[in-house]
Amino acid sequence: MEAFVGIDWGGTYIKAAVLDSKGKIYKRKVFASEELREKKAFIRTLKDFIAGLDKFNLKGIGIGAPGIINIKRGFIYYLPNIPGWENFHLKTILEKELKIPVFIDNDANVFALAEARLGAAKDVQRAIFLTLGTGLGGAVIFNGQILEGEVSASEVGHVPLSLDGKLCGCGARGCIETFVGNKYLLKRYAQLKKDKGKVSEVKEIFERARAGEAQALIVWKEFSIALGKFLAGMINIFNPQKIVFGGGVSKAFSIFKPLVWQVIKKQAMWPQAKSVKLVRAKLKDAGVIGAALLAKENIGR
Amino acid sequence: MEAFVGIDWGGTYIKAAVLDSKGKIYKRKVFASEELREKKAFIRTLKDFIAGLDKFNLKGIGIGAPGIINIKRGFIYYLPNIPGWENFHLKTILEKELKIPVFIDNDANVFALAEARLGAAKDVQRAIFLTLGTGLGGAVIFNGQILEGEVSASEVGHVPLSLDGKLCGCGARGCIETFVGNKYLLKRYAQLKKDKGKVSEVKEIFERARAGEAQALIVWKEFSIALGKFLAGMINIFNPQKIVFGGGVSKAFSIFKPLVWQVIKKQAMWPQAKSVKLVRAKLKDAGVIGAALLAKENIGR
Repeated sequence: MEAFVGIDWGGTYIKAAVLDSKGKIYKRKVFASEELREKKAFIRTLKDFIAGLDKFNLKGIGIGAPGIINIKRGFIYYLPNIPGWENFHLKTILEKELKIPVFIDNDANVFALAEARLGAAKDVQRAIFLTLGTGLGGAVIFNGQILEGEVSASEVGHVPLSLDGKLCGCGARGCIETFVGNKYLLKRYAQLKKDKGKVSEVKEIFERARAGEAQALIVWKEFSIALGKFLAGMINIFNPQKIVFGGGVSKAFSIFKPLVWQVIKKQAMWPQAKSVKLVRAKLKDAGVIGAALLAKENIGR
Repeated sequence: MEAFVGIDWGGTYIKAAVLDSKGKIYKRKVFASEELREKKAFIRTLKDFIAGLDKFNLKGIGIGAPGIINIKRGFIYYLPNIPGWENFHLKTILEKELKIPVFIDNDANVFALAEARLGAAKDVQRAIFLTLGTGLGGAVIFNGQILEGEVSASEVGHVPLSLDGKLCGCGARGCIETFVGNKYLLKRYAQLKKDKGKVSEVKEIFERARAGEAQALIVWKEFSIALGKFLAGMINIFNPQKIVFGGGVSKAFSIFKPLVWQVIKKQAMWPQAKSVKLVRAKLKDAGVIGAALLAKENIGR
């Protein structure tokens, strides 16, 4: 059996797994991201993990990395939340160390690949994928392939929705991420509550909204209007068949979906709007599955 | 020699031409759009034109239409500025009448195809094309192909740049078109001039800006900020190698390019921004050339 290693490189955990070509997981291991912040530790740990996989017919390694990647060269431009990795030839170095093909892409693209092949969008050719969390990650599948240039593009979270707007982590102002990212929702909620009954997690705003609390409902309404507007633009551009919502904030899907849909119907062009469905992501292990698929689909390409 | 008919269906003129497979024009004819508003007149006129082309080895007809098209079926959803064409099977009907393959796409896509194959973007695989005029038409070439789904997508003019904003011709609010379209520029200029020294054409605002008039410069500055912001989002999504500006308003390219570029550098992610060039469209007859190429590239597909 041909096997692939999938690495899901997140802000808190780095998950590694061995999978077959159909995405079935045979072995997994989880590392604390904090311990692998240094390049040396990261590479050594990965090397040790691979060394213990003798019994598998390992064909390649795929990595979903939290940053801006040159896909063709497997080169990291930068990781916004992990300093020290700027302009690093990760693919070249790992292939030399591990003697096995390595492929690297942005985490959102890898998530999209998993959901497109085996999850919520496996029946369609064109879909938009959002990971709603601290930021807004995103990816596009077009004609069955991840939309990407040299750079791990389809950075949909950094499409502006305002001429000025709040400062975004990317350095620009008014990106859609500043309307729907976790920390902006928490801040807006605190503002509406006048700092009485502040919460530290978005899921509490979700629960309070479900209980009918006015301020919590306002947060989701504003969230939905911004997200719907933004998605209307994406729908006009890509004519997608599905929009797939993943990430922690997508747990509030039942609250925001009807509102988002209302905005889309009003804002998007109807021939494009009528053929799109809003759905939740399906896979529990999309990160490692997508990373393994990245390796599988790129070997010999 | 294999020949193709290209039809450039504009708001004022309908241009028809016979071209070879390399885009060389052998015969042309121009009709007033007004006279062909009715479907019957349009079809009859096209039939007469084709009937006079006996000496050519005609392989197909391509049409760039000013509206929302189902590309696969050659079906017109609607033409925003020409009533009476809603839900019309133009391809089916023309093929029956003319006994020759017919292909229909949106005019912006057809313009992009011409510039991508023979014009300003013939050396790149990923480019964004804008037609700056009454509205903002646009198209995307990705991996050498027009980005399109079922519908003549890549409707980039209808990406929102504001949560509320002005009402757009498409029915939505705050589309980028409402920041950079002709009529919005004229209105804004009139407002700045307090209705003294109003103009009726955008090129006059361009000339006055070149002469250093303060209000005219403000119009171009606002135009450039909006266009630059919008393009930064497109650059983050598509990682294009070129952005090609066509349409009447692109005559002001020398005025707005430096400003647009400043905004892009500030707003777009740098790995994507560093590899993009802003250029003017090159072809004089992009409309008919692109339409002919549409036919050529789709025959036998």
